[in-house]
Amino acid sequence: MNPQTDQAVRFLEDCRRQTDALLEQKLADARPASSRLLEAMRYSVLGGGKRIRPALCLGAAEAAGGDPLSALVPACAVELIHAYSLIHDDLPAMDDDGLRRGRPTTHIAFGEATAILAGDALQSLAFGWLSRALALDPETRLSMVTELAAASGYQGMAGGQAIDLESVDQPPDLNLLETMHRHKTGALIEASVRMGAMTNPGLDDRRMQDLTRYAKALGLAFQVQDDLLDIEGDTSVIGKPRGSDLARNKPTYPALMGVDGARAYLDGLLNTALDSLKGFDHRADKLRAMASFVVARDH
Amino acid sequence: MNPQTDQAVRFLEDCRRQTDALLEQKLADARPASSRLLEAMRYSVLGGGKRIRPALCLGAAEAAGGDPLSALVPACAVELIHAYSLIHDDLPAMDDDGLRRGRPTTHIAFGEATAILAGDALQSLAFGWLSRALALDPETRLSMVTELAAASGYQGMAGGQAIDLESVDQPPDLNLLETMHRHKTGALIEASVRMGAMTNPGLDDRRMQDLTRYAKALGLAFQVQDDLLDIEGDTSVIGKPRGSDLARNKPTYPALMGVDGARAYLDGLLNTALDSLKGFDHRADKLRAMASFVVARDH
Repeated sequence: MNPQTDQAVRFLEDCRRQTDALLEQKLADARPASSRLLEAMRYSVLGGGKRIRPALCLGAAEAAGGDPLSALVPACAVELIHAYSLIHDDLPAMDDDGLRRGRPTTHIAFGEATAILAGDALQSLAFGWLSRALALDPETRLSMVTELAAASGYQGMAGGQAIDLESVDQPPDLNLLETMHRHKTGALIEASVRMGAMTNPGLDDRRMQDLTRYAKALGLAFQVQDDLLDIEGDTSVIGKPRGSDLARNKPTYPALMGVDGARAYLDGLLNTALDSLKGFDHRADKLRAMASFVVARDH
Repeated sequence: MNPQTDQAVRFLEDCRRQTDALLEQKLADARPASSRLLEAMRYSVLGGGKRIRPALCLGAAEAAGGDPLSALVPACAVELIHAYSLIHDDLPAMDDDGLRRGRPTTHIAFGEATAILAGDALQSLAFGWLSRALALDPETRLSMVTELAAASGYQGMAGGQAIDLESVDQPPDLNLLETMHRHKTGALIEASVRMGAMTNPGLDDRRMQDLTRYAKALGLAFQVQDDLLDIEGDTSVIGKPRGSDLARNKPTYPALMGVDGARAYLDGLLNTALDSLKGFDHRADKLRAMASFVVARDH
């Protein structure tokens, strides 16, 4: 492992511990309306995951000169949205996946109806929790709600998933693929970084733009690497059957650019991400490490 | 029609015009990520509906001495949550309903996957929109996000829907039925009233409690009347097949209390609702009229 990747792995581990502790605490409720529903929510949120989005949120808070501690609730809110999106994406009517992170998906474990509701309730929880993040001033909390809602909704993640559904069996098209990913996964990654940066309300616009550019490049890089892993990865490591995108006839970067072309594109995105952080001091080292990690990860 | 019901019908018509104009404007987007997704969202939000929740929100703003105009965005946000919940409740994995308001349900018209996403995106939109309701001060907007999130999530509406799923084929139980309704429909009706009242940040706690009590009674009354309509109503008026709850072996108030018992219970709830408004002046007349309307409505 190179030193950058090593630093990212330690940082991710640290973020995972912090966010999991808070998520565990917030998802404990002795008297839920439905124990089964809460159990399904806990199953999907607390059942592992790399916590890349929370790490980006905490890393961006540090890079922006904000308070990483105050970024912990927004980091968890983003993770709740991510968890809800995985539940819904895996549903039979969507991607129909039975395996996620090496375990049965939520609808396999709890049934479709409970899975739909668990996703719905996780989304509500994300916004409710964010609205009560008392370490942040009211204006900042509101900006974060606005940001997270836009990233999740029809102009963000949900919109991207809709494009994804529509793209099955369509002729492959690089522009459409890019638009899909910018919405489906890019928007939430961008929101993670921007919400972290918002913990410094005095951050100058130019720096916010730099971080946004970093996040956009990283979001796409993440997806290109995902596509490469889908055709090259090991099922036991990536936690889902290899080739599942190809089998569904979904367009991928390697299919459109070739494996070498996709690798070169990935390198270019890494450079863009790192270049965006030029104006930042050592406090952006974790974001730099995260960029290297994303393109080097094996799952 | 009695004068109270007549006033409520005029008020509802007025609210419907105001909220529909704003909803229409906000759901217009020349460049959505997916036209089909936006179309599905518009289909479900703009396809009719009595707009009872927006009316309660606007009515409560007036009763509380707030500004009804500033309650318009919160009123629409509640309606977006309501619309999303109807889409998801109608899904094959949930209630499997093909007809709603006399039209094909969203998943019949657009397919299951798009329907799930439309619901998801409407929920995001509700919170995003509320966070930018500039007629309200930041603290009020945050309190509304907190309120709406709690009412929608696992301790509110989604929790109630989970109880509902679990209650199918269970032995009938009045306590469970009441708990289910207090969550499934009651929580959002309560939030509608409370969010309207929050438009007066100086409202005294006692008055807020009165309005909350009003909303709780009204929410249950709404449900008891729904159950009565299910066995007595006319399909062409209620917009769904009569007896559909009974056919699914779901518990209902008439099944547990008899039709006369349910009617008497409904009258008691109406009295509680009206009694809760004793300390309010003529500005609560619309809420009074709404209570009479809910128990007298034929659809």
